[in-house]
Amino acid sequence: MTSIRLLKGHGTGNDFVIVPDHDGALDLSEEQVRLLCDRHRGIGGDGVLRVVRVGADAEARALAALDPGAAEAQWFMDYRNADGSIAEMCGNGIRVFAQYLASAGLVGGQFDVLTRGGTRALLAAGPAGEWIVAMGQASRLPFIPAVTAHGGATASALSVLEIPNPHVVIKVVDEAALEALDLTVAPSVRPPLPHGQNVEFVAITGPRALTMRVHERGVGETLSCGTGICAAAIAASDHAPKVSPSTWPSVLSPSSDPELWTVTVPGGVCTVELRSDGEVLLHGPAVLVAELTVSSEWLGAA
Amino acid sequence: MTSIRLLKGHGTGNDFVIVPDHDGALDLSEEQVRLLCDRHRGIGGDGVLRVVRVGADAEARALAALDPGAAEAQWFMDYRNADGSIAEMCGNGIRVFAQYLASAGLVGGQFDVLTRGGTRALLAAGPAGEWIVAMGQASRLPFIPAVTAHGGATASALSVLEIPNPHVVIKVVDEAALEALDLTVAPSVRPPLPHGQNVEFVAITGPRALTMRVHERGVGETLSCGTGICAAAIAASDHAPKVSPSTWPSVLSPSSDPELWTVTVPGGVCTVELRSDGEVLLHGPAVLVAELTVSSEWLGAA
Repeated sequence: MTSIRLLKGHGTGNDFVIVPDHDGALDLSEEQVRLLCDRHRGIGGDGVLRVVRVGADAEARALAALDPGAAEAQWFMDYRNADGSIAEMCGNGIRVFAQYLASAGLVGGQFDVLTRGGTRALLAAGPAGEWIVAMGQASRLPFIPAVTAHGGATASALSVLEIPNPHVVIKVVDEAALEALDLTVAPSVRPPLPHGQNVEFVAITGPRALTMRVHERGVGETLSCGTGICAAAIAASDHAPKVSPSTWPSVLSPSSDPELWTVTVPGGVCTVELRSDGEVLLHGPAVLVAELTVSSEWLGAA
Repeated sequence: MTSIRLLKGHGTGNDFVIVPDHDGALDLSEEQVRLLCDRHRGIGGDGVLRVVRVGADAEARALAALDPGAAEAQWFMDYRNADGSIAEMCGNGIRVFAQYLASAGLVGGQFDVLTRGGTRALLAAGPAGEWIVAMGQASRLPFIPAVTAHGGATASALSVLEIPNPHVVIKVVDEAALEALDLTVAPSVRPPLPHGQNVEFVAITGPRALTMRVHERGVGETLSCGTGICAAAIAASDHAPKVSPSTWPSVLSPSSDPELWTVTVPGGVCTVELRSDGEVLLHGPAVLVAELTVSSEWLGAA
């Protein structure tokens, strides 16, 4: 009976079981992922982050061959949802993934990570587990569905965005209205997006500050959603009153590139950096909570 | 920065962070218990089981001095709820506690464990983590409150029992009715018990078999509740048709002492042994899932 070494970590309360599998020896089944993420019978997590070298995994080699931007990526983030299904990208998970790589001495400075949603550049933004992730660009979809939270009034969406997963962003009047929302049931979205959507409810709390709650597709309300945080900041920026720099004394002009939005979610705070070229950067924390050992017999691993 | 060794385990889905503290060096604060039990930012658990020698803990020495039955108990189960509060006993937790002691080679055969609810005898019932716990005797309370599950019809309680925590047991017509219950909201109990109550809804599924769901006081619906399982079996037995042994051919007579009830909960199956002298024994599984290491800095421990 051999033992398997794991870790547990979280980014703004979005938590993961990290499976170091540098040489691609583990072939995690859906059932094993569900057991690892089971919060009562397993370790517990919103998902699994399997850490494998790009060269040691057939899927990663195929993804890298199709992506010219992947040339520098040494590590593949094999991200699985708690239900065992495969997922593309996770803005909170990738910071936890990076924190594992850095704490294990496997990376330094800026580095790239290959994901099923493309290659992402990461940079440590401080000594205490703060990371900056280049999230790519968002696509704005040209239609405005009507959204109704359970038991609440119907409102029009502020924006519909893909980054790359689909988000519908709704503005509420203030933080009290945000707190009063019942998100135990999925909000109604009419018409719905073809592959479903995450729904972000946003209260604007300052010139470049917002508080949000999120209902994730297939999950329910969560403490945090990295791509949802980016989508909310983009939507708020698109609809914020724009000040022409020429109307301001230059010394008092707010810097407009990059534009930094502070986003508060139930699990913590992140900053979204919106660059004038459309690139979106997510700044946020990652915490490694524990190292774990489980028996391969328990996990049902070969 | 030192590290602290922990374990995680469960009994029928009721899960615990085990804190080995044999020599009583840790003084866990409420805040540390809440962090350990936090399912997103910590390890995650329904409670903490701190393992300490009776002689190494002032509270345990005081409890043992008051309890003549504690003379043989070497270990004290310092059980805390996930909210940091102190709890007396847990029928699922004590099996996980015993499984830790046995796997660490600290006990063998039958042994006693001191708890805030008294001393409990434990015996391994098989090689795979099956345990028998002597749960003591139950007290039947002579009043029958009316119970209404959220959105459902009002029914009279079958029995009200203390073992030693308070339980109200309700019979429903069948397993379909059990599944249909909405336990996301605490059932209404009129009149309520002075210190609140756990509420067990029970469907009788065979001569000595039942399926139940439980709403725990201050917690909500859980996958399992050890004392609730015992309370449900006692209530079902009290109300079951009694067969006089003299009316049966002796060779076919069902054994009436002990009386064994099979109780299915959402998290698994236990057996309750009801002895004619009133002693209640709980038979059920315990699983150690993982060994963990956290930093004392993370836990905020001295």
